Amino acid sequence: IGAANNLLAAMLDNHIYQGNTLRIDPKRITWKRVVDMNDRQLRSIVNGLGPRTNGVVREDGYDITVASEIMAVLCLSSSITDLKERLAKMIVAYTYDEQPVTAGDLKAAGAMAALLKDAMKPNLVQTLEGTPAFIHGGPFANIAHGCNSVMATRMALKLGDYVVTEGGFGADLGAEKFVDIKCRMSGLKPSACVIVATVRALKHHGGVAKADLNNEDLNALEKGLPNLLRHVENVTKVYGLPAVVAINRFPTDSEAELELIRTKCRELGVNVALSEVWGKGGEGGRELAEEVVRLCEQPNQFSFAYDSELSIEEKLDTIVKRVYHGSKAVLTPDAKKQAKQLAEPGFGSYPI
Amino acid sequence: IGAANNLLAAMLDNHIYQGNTLRIDPKRITWKRVVDMNDRQLRSIVNGLGPRTNGVVREDGYDITVASEIMAVLCLSSSITDLKERLAKMIVAYTYDEQPVTAGDLKAAGAMAALLKDAMKPNLVQTLEGTPAFIHGGPFANIAHGCNSVMATRMALKLGDYVVTEGGFGADLGAEKFVDIKCRMSGLKPSACVIVATVRALKHHGGVAKADLNNEDLNALEKGLPNLLRHVENVTKVYGLPAVVAINRFPTDSEAELELIRTKCRELGVNVALSEVWGKGGEGGRELAEEVVRLCEQPNQFSFAYDSELSIEEKLDTIVKRVYHGSKAVLTPDAKKQAKQLAEPGFGSYPI
Amino acid sequence: IGAANNLLAAMLDNHIYQGNTLRIDPKRITWKRVVDMNDRQLRSIVNGLGPRTNGVVREDGYDITVASEIMAVLCLSSSITDLKERLAKMIVAYTYDEQPVTAGDLKAAGAMAALLKDAMKPNLVQTLEGTPAFIHGGPFANIAHGCNSVMATRMALKLGDYVVTEGGFGADLGAEKFVDIKCRMSGLKPSACVIVATVRALKHHGGVAKADLNNEDLNALEKGLPNLLRHVENVTKVYGLPAVVAINRFPTDSEAELELIRTKCRELGVNVALSEVWGKGGEGGRELAEEVVRLCEQPNQFSFAYDSELSIEEKLDTIVKRVYHGSKAVLTPDAKKQAKQLAEPGFGSYPI
Amino acid sequence: IGAANNLLAAMLDNHIYQGNTLRIDPKRITWKRVVDMNDRQLRSIVNGLGPRTNGVVREDGYDITVASEIMAVLCLSSSITDLKERLAKMIVAYTYDEQPVTAGDLKAAGAMAALLKDAMKPNLVQTLEGTPAFIHGGPFANIAHGCNSVMATRMALKLGDYVVTEGGFGADLGAEKFVDIKCRMSGLKPSACVIVATVRALKHHGGVAKADLNNEDLNALEKGLPNLLRHVENVTKVYGLPAVVAINRFPTDSEAELELIRTKCRELGVNVALSEVWGKGGEGGRELAEEVVRLCEQPNQFSFAYDSELSIEEKLDTIVKRVYHGSKAVLTPDAKKQAKQLAEPGFGSYPI
Repeated sequence: IGAANNLLAAMLDNHIYQGNTLRIDPKRITWKRVVDMNDRQLRSIVNGLGPRTNGVVREDGYDITVASEIMAVLCLSSSITDLKERLAKMIVAYTYDEQPVTAGDLKAAGAMAALLKDAMKPNLVQTLEGTPAFIHGGPFANIAHGCNSVMATRMALKLGDYVVTEGGFGADLGAEKFVDIKCRMSGLKPSACVIVATVRALKHHGGVAKADLNNEDLNALEKGLPNLLRHVENVTKVYGLPAVVAINRFPTDSEAELELIRTKCRELGVNVALSEVWGKGGEGGRELAEEVVRLCEQPNQFSFAYDSELSIEEKLDTIVKRVYHGSKAVLTPDAKKQAKQLAEPGFGSYPI
Repeated sequence: IGAANNLLAAMLDNHIYQGNTLRIDPKRITWKRVVDMNDRQLRSIVNGLGPRTNGVVREDGYDITVASEIMAVLCLSSSITDLKERLAKMIVAYTYDEQPVTAGDLKAAGAMAALLKDAMKPNLVQTLEGTPAFIHGGPFANIAHGCNSVMATRMALKLGDYVVTEGGFGADLGAEKFVDIKCRMSGLKPSACVIVATVRALKHHGGVAKADLNNEDLNALEKGLPNLLRHVENVTKVYGLPAVVAINRFPTDSEAELELIRTKCRELGVNVALSEVWGKGGEGGRELAEEVVRLCEQPNQFSFAYDSELSIEEKLDTIVKRVYHGSKAVLTPDAKKQAKQLAEPGFGSYPI
Repeated sequence: IGAANNLLAAMLDNHIYQGNTLRIDPKRITWKRVVDMNDRQLRSIVNGLGPRTNGVVREDGYDITVASEIMAVLCLSSSITDLKERLAKMIVAYTYDEQPVTAGDLKAAGAMAALLKDAMKPNLVQTLEGTPAFIHGGPFANIAHGCNSVMATRMALKLGDYVVTEGGFGADLGAEKFVDIKCRMSGLKPSACVIVATVRALKHHGGVAKADLNNEDLNALEKGLPNLLRHVENVTKVYGLPAVVAINRFPTDSEAELELIRTKCRELGVNVALSEVWGKGGEGGRELAEEVVRLCEQPNQFSFAYDSELSIEEKLDTIVKRVYHGSKAVLTPDAKKQAKQLAEPGFGSYPI
Repeated sequence: IGAANNLLAAMLDNHIYQGNTLRIDPKRITWKRVVDMNDRQLRSIVNGLGPRTNGVVREDGYDITVASEIMAVLCLSSSITDLKERLAKMIVAYTYDEQPVTAGDLKAAGAMAALLKDAMKPNLVQTLEGTPAFIHGGPFANIAHGCNSVMATRMALKLGDYVVTEGGFGADLGAEKFVDIKCRMSGLKPSACVIVATVRALKHHGGVAKADLNNEDLNALEKGLPNLLRHVENVTKVYGLPAVVAINRFPTDSEAELELIRTKCRELGVNVALSEVWGKGGEGGRELAEEVVRLCEQPNQFSFAYDSELSIEEKLDTIVKRVYHGSKAVLTPDAKKQAKQLAEPGFGSYPI
């Protein structure tokens, strides 16, 4: 991924050097190089210094490899052809007239796809008990869509009866992106959702200091619960999915605490299952698995958080209201300008 | 290799950023970053720009990954411990007082060796006929010692009866470095040497235009032959090894041409074997292989081109005289200064 | 002034180059070079590139010469000795430990004062009618205190019976800085204040388009007048000075319009005098001059807008409330940090 | 001069920023900015960093103001119109197609001439005895033609009976440039030449240590004399001018030493005059002045060292042979390329 990213950067610079027929403005290049390390020294650089053959002097910078847009593109692609098309659409710079320039304009997509040929293949690994699992793709949810590759999920669906996949960063950021971006773009349709929590985290959220988390504290737990319940409601009401709350059990969790969670979740029509996989292996997840199987057999009203035909600003506003329960999305003038710039070449109907 | 190289660069910059207790002069850093591509834009850069946390502003540049000193070090190492020691000795910068700073001073060798752990393992591949071969390590002979890794050669010696290894860039540059650097440092002792040539190349060397190489031209061949014979003499007289000349046969080579080469080589006591491997596979190399086996059974007077106790300037002078048959090595004032700078910390006795 | 400014910059860089005993952090240099032109290319640069003797690589930039702090310092100095002391106190950078470094620490003040020796001398010029005038010093009021040099004003006071001096940028920004900075620091005490206005500008302020300014419009004039009256009140109530409003008369000003201004000003106890200097020369200013002479003979309660013992934030707050009639000064976190940084070395009691 | 130089630089950068219709290659800009100080930090910089409006990022550098080509142009100009024409012809950059771009192409000559309007006027000063003198223009002889302005010399010729002007850097470098550049371009024709020397310098040249220069040493003086005599011969034989050697007398010069110089010069047909101006004022120069007046009345065969129609390489060769008495001018490949590049747009016939 790093090589494909940097190949594109080099092809862009070389295009400018070779006469710049696309009229790329070196001050409006948005594509950065990447390095597989957090190297502070490279965050902001000037390159192309020295003799003519060293290229055109300009400001540039490095991101971390996993932050590359190519990581996100790879994870959303359904085939090498699809990957090539998606790569070709990536905007890498703007011209002197503020028109977007894509990787396709630079004729870079083919060479990049060739470099990514092997990276496209899901890695099959196994758990200690021999359960197969795919590890494939790691875009961060804070800057990209935050879930593994479409190809790995599809391959898993071909091979197994049930496929469990993870969407990091909570049922707001993580689940929203999983549903609105990955599922929407790939046509995948989840059957049920597992929301993972711990008694300790809920008490911590309710105000208990880290050192005191081992002591029973129903009061703090009650204060922390609304956070979990909001995630539950997002899943059941916004995305229309049957859900189960999985409690990763710690030895210090008291029965009274677990019971309180069960009661509150039941009020929202959702069961709680203890997960003791850490201590007991697969056997410790039996209760949870059975509930998941039960949920999968139920009908569901899966739906997206927003309609793809809304404008960029409307989509943001809908997410703010439905998922984050804010009152309104307010865009800075810069953000408004960017939204307009993205809508013009037809990116307005993309999920966000 | 790229990752280890750039980790070292990042650790160096971070050391300066964190207070620079080694007093490294940012203008005297000799260690460059590398990229696995010929990216002109990165040859000469300024990095560390922006806020304080982006590091110290300085001039820097990128080499191609294969040109990294680490490639050479990896190929000369006999074990992971040896690799670590060699990495630790690499000079990466000089202090404000012009004292050398090594990767070891930066405590970078361990982390680098960890990154190189897998790269140290020779890759076993096979030919179309199933003959096993190791491909491992590619330092260029123009900037490094130009032959594959010591570990691959040793592993091959454990596994096979005869090991054939390549030293690129002729019997002057390539063979000299193979003998004086790789063999000397590893204790390996070759039994015989194959010098590869083509009739076409010799005629081209003798003045024939490319378009006319298909026509017999004994006159031009005779003019081109001294080049080959000098390589032969370097091998037999300077390095003291039995040699055979392998002619990569082309259909257009005439019998008279081949006979002329045979005659001239015989005058130097060396046989010629035709190699038709390209057309006939392993069978086409039988004649050559048999001659090599014969040579390996002969005693030899293997010796280096120069003594390691000579000074840097004396070594250069000896190479110029014995291998390149020049009259004298003349050093520029800069080169003299560098020779002195390298001799001071004890690098004077290293092969060149 | 440009030469003195850039000499200081060069001495600062040279100090770093020569071993940096003051431990100046090249990323925390606040002193910029200046150029006597608006040269976009120099606003943001990297300098010190190339061999060691070219200095230390760092980010730098150019301001316009009149924006140099030295311009402000020159205008506030009462003698060459005072100039030297003020120059010495200018902060030019911070150390790695965030301690301020001054021009005095760099021993630059003497050399700078020598360069400014001639620039300190007020330029005596004359009007078309032979009235003497000093033109000396031009710090912008938006970035500095915006009035001419203390030395020119003092010299004029020695030579003439009445001295008229200008404070640009209105009776809020300009007069406030003239009073609170120049008068306070020099001990000068004004006797009266002339507030200049035009009928056209007041109508424009009242909403009239530029093309229609030649037509009488009492309604718009009335709407525009509060702006003028607020300036008048600032002068009479905040600074305690007798004032006269001078109307720069245009042929299109109607008598009714002038009368309206007179009435409104009279309500604040201030007379209006027409100035027709543009058309009639000195004779056209007789009415205004006589009113000024009359005011100068009256007692006045001259006072500053704020007390110098207040903290930086309190001073800002007082200016906002008393002069700009805002409700409160709100500082960004960055501004708060800067206020603290300035107060620490004892700059808190300086006028703002 | 600094302002005009930097205005041109700013206009050049602004031209590139505004769309670059001349197709100037930012890597082939030869015009540098100047600063009136030896500021190491500015020798090599990158400018135009930051937002678009800060211009195009490129490498740049500063020279010292006196080294500006404008200094040389100013000194060779005969009027403001001539100045403008000369400024317009200065090459400041090359296009992407390697065509020269001049200040005239940038329409900068008029604005620059306006800035230089006052600098063009010779400064009239006087000696302690009241003798008038012009001080005007200071191009260094090592990088330019090394003598004062044509306008000052012409003005002096209008005002006085005899005009003495200085050409620094010896009768080889200084006199050659005075004759071949200044005189040739302005049509001025010198009447006689004063060659200044000291006994001490000649003895020093003959091998005497500085501490022993006070002692008579005829042997060393004789060894040092050929240097002086060569200068004398250059003047009389190459440039065809009557000459006098002026000895700046020191109290320690012995009569025998002075006599030796006189004898040797007389052999070349040249008189020696003692100059005691330092101790006796104008009176101390009477002997010298009378000899100069005498020489001026003689006819002379003033001629240039080379013909202006020769090629650049031929001119250099002629100077080497006739003035420096070398055997041949050898140009590096770079210098040859530059000579060709200069000859193409018609600069080949300019004096060197």
